[in-house]
Amino acid sequence: MSQAVLIDQLRSLLDDGKLLTDADSLQTYGKDWTKHFAPAPLAIALPKSIEQVQAIVRWANEHKVALVPSGGRTGLSAAAVAANGEVVVAFDYMNQILSFNEYDRTVVCQPGVITEQLQNFAEEQGLYYPVDFASAGSSQIGGNIGTNAGGIKVIRYGMTRNWVAGMKVVTGTGELLELNRDLIKNATGYDLRQLFIGGEGTLGFVVEATMRLDRAPKNLTAMVLGAPDMDAVMPVLHAFQSKLDLTAFEFFSDKALAKILARGDVPAPFETDCPFYALLEFEATSEEVANQALETFEYCVEQGWVLDGVMSQSEQQLQNLWKLREYISETISHWTPYKNDISVTVSKVPAFLADIDQIVASNYPDFEVIWFGHIGDGNLHLNILKPENLSKDEFFAKCATVNQWVFETVDKYNGSISAEHGVGMTKRDYLHYSRSAAEIAIMRSIKAVFDPNGIMNPGKIFPQA
Amino acid sequence: MSQAVLIDQLRSLLDDGKLLTDADSLQTYGKDWTKHFAPAPLAIALPKSIEQVQAIVRWANEHKVALVPSGGRTGLSAAAVAANGEVVVAFDYMNQILSFNEYDRTVVCQPGVITEQLQNFAEEQGLYYPVDFASAGSSQIGGNIGTNAGGIKVIRYGMTRNWVAGMKVVTGTGELLELNRDLIKNATGYDLRQLFIGGEGTLGFVVEATMRLDRAPKNLTAMVLGAPDMDAVMPVLHAFQSKLDLTAFEFFSDKALAKILARGDVPAPFETDCPFYALLEFEATSEEVANQALETFEYCVEQGWVLDGVMSQSEQQLQNLWKLREYISETISHWTPYKNDISVTVSKVPAFLADIDQIVASNYPDFEVIWFGHIGDGNLHLNILKPENLSKDEFFAKCATVNQWVFETVDKYNGSISAEHGVGMTKRDYLHYSRSAAEIAIMRSIKAVFDPNGIMNPGKIFPQA
Repeated sequence: MSQAVLIDQLRSLLDDGKLLTDADSLQTYGKDWTKHFAPAPLAIALPKSIEQVQAIVRWANEHKVALVPSGGRTGLSAAAVAANGEVVVAFDYMNQILSFNEYDRTVVCQPGVITEQLQNFAEEQGLYYPVDFASAGSSQIGGNIGTNAGGIKVIRYGMTRNWVAGMKVVTGTGELLELNRDLIKNATGYDLRQLFIGGEGTLGFVVEATMRLDRAPKNLTAMVLGAPDMDAVMPVLHAFQSKLDLTAFEFFSDKALAKILARGDVPAPFETDCPFYALLEFEATSEEVANQALETFEYCVEQGWVLDGVMSQSEQQLQNLWKLREYISETISHWTPYKNDISVTVSKVPAFLADIDQIVASNYPDFEVIWFGHIGDGNLHLNILKPENLSKDEFFAKCATVNQWVFETVDKYNGSISAEHGVGMTKRDYLHYSRSAAEIAIMRSIKAVFDPNGIMNPGKIFPQA
Repeated sequence: MSQAVLIDQLRSLLDDGKLLTDADSLQTYGKDWTKHFAPAPLAIALPKSIEQVQAIVRWANEHKVALVPSGGRTGLSAAAVAANGEVVVAFDYMNQILSFNEYDRTVVCQPGVITEQLQNFAEEQGLYYPVDFASAGSSQIGGNIGTNAGGIKVIRYGMTRNWVAGMKVVTGTGELLELNRDLIKNATGYDLRQLFIGGEGTLGFVVEATMRLDRAPKNLTAMVLGAPDMDAVMPVLHAFQSKLDLTAFEFFSDKALAKILARGDVPAPFETDCPFYALLEFEATSEEVANQALETFEYCVEQGWVLDGVMSQSEQQLQNLWKLREYISETISHWTPYKNDISVTVSKVPAFLADIDQIVASNYPDFEVIWFGHIGDGNLHLNILKPENLSKDEFFAKCATVNQWVFETVDKYNGSISAEHGVGMTKRDYLHYSRSAAEIAIMRSIKAVFDPNGIMNPGKIFPQA
């Protein structure tokens, strides 16, 4: 069958105008926030219903055409990039909140619902959707589930995984599965829902999800603390965690702070210079809780773990303290950073970080390393800034070597080569640093169960054979 | 190969005296708390190490012998029953807590660690293992994971699933997998850990688990509230959940309470007779929280949702209120109850319960129905007491009909035929009331990936072909 006939056939499965093949659309829908792969999709399909998604998948099976799911395209692992003539299935027109149940505190979402849309909807109900991260304004629920999105509140609320009560998925055979019936307790065999969470669209597409909401947090209050070294941050976390239910425990280095302060629009948290900073947040539900936080702060100062600190006294101050952490990614983007998103267990963070610092410093002394991340989850964002005198190509060539060292160190510390950004195409060839050969073989077999013809987002997660 | 030679071979893989074939051991290790199936294992193997478990599985593959894992044998679905000449693999000698990390708040457990042993260990560290249920004194961590055990604190802390940071499993091929490396964030493909949680030993055996601990709860305080009808319990739950972080929300009927009070050793919560009672619990971390609870109680009374209530003022009163709920199962066991453990989404509980009541009442008006359960999770324990004038056989024959109606009603309400007790053998033939044919087919294929020879706990979960 000629390609034109193929595409016409596909077009007939969709609403009018919902198959795009113009160059602009192919460019736009063919990529995510990564820039390593040139987009080259065959076409963009915009289904409006579950039935249309099933029809697309059946068509793809019949003609052995690969499909790539596309949400907000904010991914950082190229899991939603179509670089090999795939058909992109984008959920822009399945973007409605379908229903809300106040007793169950659940919201039925189409996959194209924007994270922020769900957050706002929850707020309107006096409730809270706690998964939050930088791209919440454009990322979609389907994509969040596909990568098991994490972000800044994981220490208290967990990953997206914790908030999926149930979902409908279309598997690689076009079959519609309704998983978990939105139940809290359901001990009826393997929880297949869990495979699709973090499955990066390789088993099937999420076509509807019932998301849980939580009660709204009360009087959120932040502290920024300066620590003399990374080793001191661990007992600080431990001391606060023993006394308070933290809603966040983030960290950033002095170099990250310097870049933020250089912007000129964010006030310094305090005068004292410190090599590392922790930002922690909690609900100051009573004066007692706030006092406990201050007592713990004083205890940490006495122990020499904290050099200086500040606690927010207003919503404005809370926002300002958060800017110190949240503006980092955007601010350092001017230096064309090499980025890596890795994790180890919390207790191993100081030693791991020191190891990486030492490796980079001894090999590339002119590289500036910026650390920040969700240290309460063991999740570190490593950023290396491009020195001015290096070309992009030279810099990224050297970074490829760094990559190797980072992953070897991750493996040495029994960590993860991708904490929350997924594997996609950018990390597939490094998967063996985090998963054994036996595990990878089992994952491939599981994919074959759901997607026997290998049409669902091929080339993602799995190392190229 | 003769059976004697086979058994000798197996014996040689274990420590001296760790293969049992005497009649008493076969009886003891061959069953769980269910009584529907006569135990008939070939032998009992008591491995002392992961290597020995692997050797047993390899031996079983070679000779096509089925294996049944055995923990505390407190299961209620016959998932750990060996009724067909299987070898039971019991974890009595792999019962050590191996290590503890205070920063990660994790405990590495062998599978035979008793739930209570972990709870006590946590308490010694000033921490808390929150999964708790009636059989915590004898159930084991391996079994808890196999059934994704729930219990009385799920509304706040979730199921066992939430507390497994990582685990080592031996699959049906004898391969050792180390799953998730105990990480909080790990976006590297399918989370295989999740399949073993609730997998009832059909994919492989959990041979080590890293369990998370939480901070210890503060000043736990309980309320028992009497409601005029089941419909009123929903807005009560909703009102309290909007104001407080509940650690439990249980319920029981007037008939359940009557049985407890007839014991003579538990005081009545208050004078007023009510058809339904809710027991809720929260951390009264400050006077403000306690006042909020009282205000909410008063609001519920004003609305007519609550007729009377009491709040614990001491640890002793807390214990006494909990006895009203926790003694039910043991107390009604004298009436040879037919038991069922089912769930629906929380909002559907009143209608579902009324439907079942109506079905039983119209068909068997002499049957006494006792309801209790974890209503905050939508999890109902249905108990029907045997009328004195019916023989056991007659009673259970009639109950088989009730079973059918219950499962049909569960399906109608899109619920689960097993909320937290698992499928095992008792519910395998009803699985289609909760899982679609497509899902069951996929589950079978996934089993084949991990256990190609079908030797791991065969006949459990899956309907007989």
